[in-house]
Amino acid sequence: MTYCVAIALDEGLVFCSDSRTNAGPDRVSKYSKMHRFFYNEDRVFVILSAGNLATSQAVLSEVQRDLEQDRESKMLATSYVSDIAEYLGGLLLKQRKKYEFSVEQTTMIDAGATLILGGQIRGRKPELYMIYPEGNFIIPPETHPYLQIGETKYGKPILDRIIRKETSHDIAMKCALVSIDSTMRSSGTVGPPIECLFYRTDSLQPYERYFIFEESNSYLVKIRSLWDESIREAFSKLPNPANDF
Amino acid sequence: MTYCVAIALDEGLVFCSDSRTNAGPDRVSKYSKMHRFFYNEDRVFVILSAGNLATSQAVLSEVQRDLEQDRESKMLATSYVSDIAEYLGGLLLKQRKKYEFSVEQTTMIDAGATLILGGQIRGRKPELYMIYPEGNFIIPPETHPYLQIGETKYGKPILDRIIRKETSHDIAMKCALVSIDSTMRSSGTVGPPIECLFYRTDSLQPYERYFIFEESNSYLVKIRSLWDESIREAFSKLPNPANDF
Repeated sequence: MTYCVAIALDEGLVFCSDSRTNAGPDRVSKYSKMHRFFYNEDRVFVILSAGNLATSQAVLSEVQRDLEQDRESKMLATSYVSDIAEYLGGLLLKQRKKYEFSVEQTTMIDAGATLILGGQIRGRKPELYMIYPEGNFIIPPETHPYLQIGETKYGKPILDRIIRKETSHDIAMKCALVSIDSTMRSSGTVGPPIECLFYRTDSLQPYERYFIFEESNSYLVKIRSLWDESIREAFSKLPNPANDF
Repeated sequence: MTYCVAIALDEGLVFCSDSRTNAGPDRVSKYSKMHRFFYNEDRVFVILSAGNLATSQAVLSEVQRDLEQDRESKMLATSYVSDIAEYLGGLLLKQRKKYEFSVEQTTMIDAGATLILGGQIRGRKPELYMIYPEGNFIIPPETHPYLQIGETKYGKPILDRIIRKETSHDIAMKCALVSIDSTMRSSGTVGPPIECLFYRTDSLQPYERYFIFEESNSYLVKIRSLWDESIREAFSKLPNPANDF
């Protein structure tokens, strides 16, 4: 599994991802799920990936090839981030079709992968899309402007409480880290290093801030233990159920 | 969906369940998922149910019939709660087989349901089992002595932080309610009324405490808003990521 979250703020875009992949409990590895693209000081994209690792690797290497071989590559030619979402969706679906039906079998392989694409093209606003294994895609909801892929449930409540469009990028990065930390506590399929990136609206630079946190990183250790303490303290302050309701 | 949790404490057993069922967004109803059995001041059982509603209803009505018609019913005849888990597992599987293959179709019906069974038989310790749709069953882990069924992920982190064998039943009931509340916030498939029951070890009475909380219940409203405030406050106290890691 994997856990990635991306947040669309007024200030810009925040991306956060873990690095654990597992094909069964004996095949646990580390791969970055955060893929960065920056061209001509004119366009910046970040892609986060979850799901079948072979599929997401194949899609990303095809993007790279198109870029090298084809000056008309969608990544460079379009003025719309949504065109790139559609292009990536097509690549996802192509890979799925190639492998899901490649061998005769009773149980079909799940070759599906899900992507989050965020970025900005000069002259337009930053945008965020989640691209499904079927190739179609959505933007985040207005009220809770974030998207998640992978093992999404454990870390969702804190995002729902904190994240709004006007949230500062500091708070949003911290919230994404707490969200990933809660997920790591409850699921062995999500693990460090954790990458966290902030892209500022209209900067058209690869990022304004980028962190990579190893498990022993002092900030990560600190917020983990502080958060645990605070939750316990907050919990202990709640009134117990009494018999007079 | 549904969310139920049961906790095995030194003090006794705590059960907590929501009441929402949905067969698609247009078929949302309220059903109690908490089923209580008490016989001869000699044995007490609580069954929580999740999954296919027809299956869990059929299983429970078969249990009732067996009790009425068969004085040798497993529920009454055995001295082991595990025998009752096995009996319920058999009924679950029988229902699944009956309906999953009842009609020819390309996509199989999921007639599976999952149960939690907890209780005590005189002369033995209280026990807790989760019974899978396949009919097999497990007890809770030593270190985190709780079991969940249904929409389990949103509400798991708080249980992992708080619940131990030596936790008091007050704290455990409060923790179960916070766990269900977090789940209701994030998932529309889980909803009130919430039932919460505490059975004290060796009491062999139906329960020592039992609450049913409607959505507007003042205690539920209070812990919900206090918890939300405390989480926000705790979060705001965490240090922001700085650039000097």
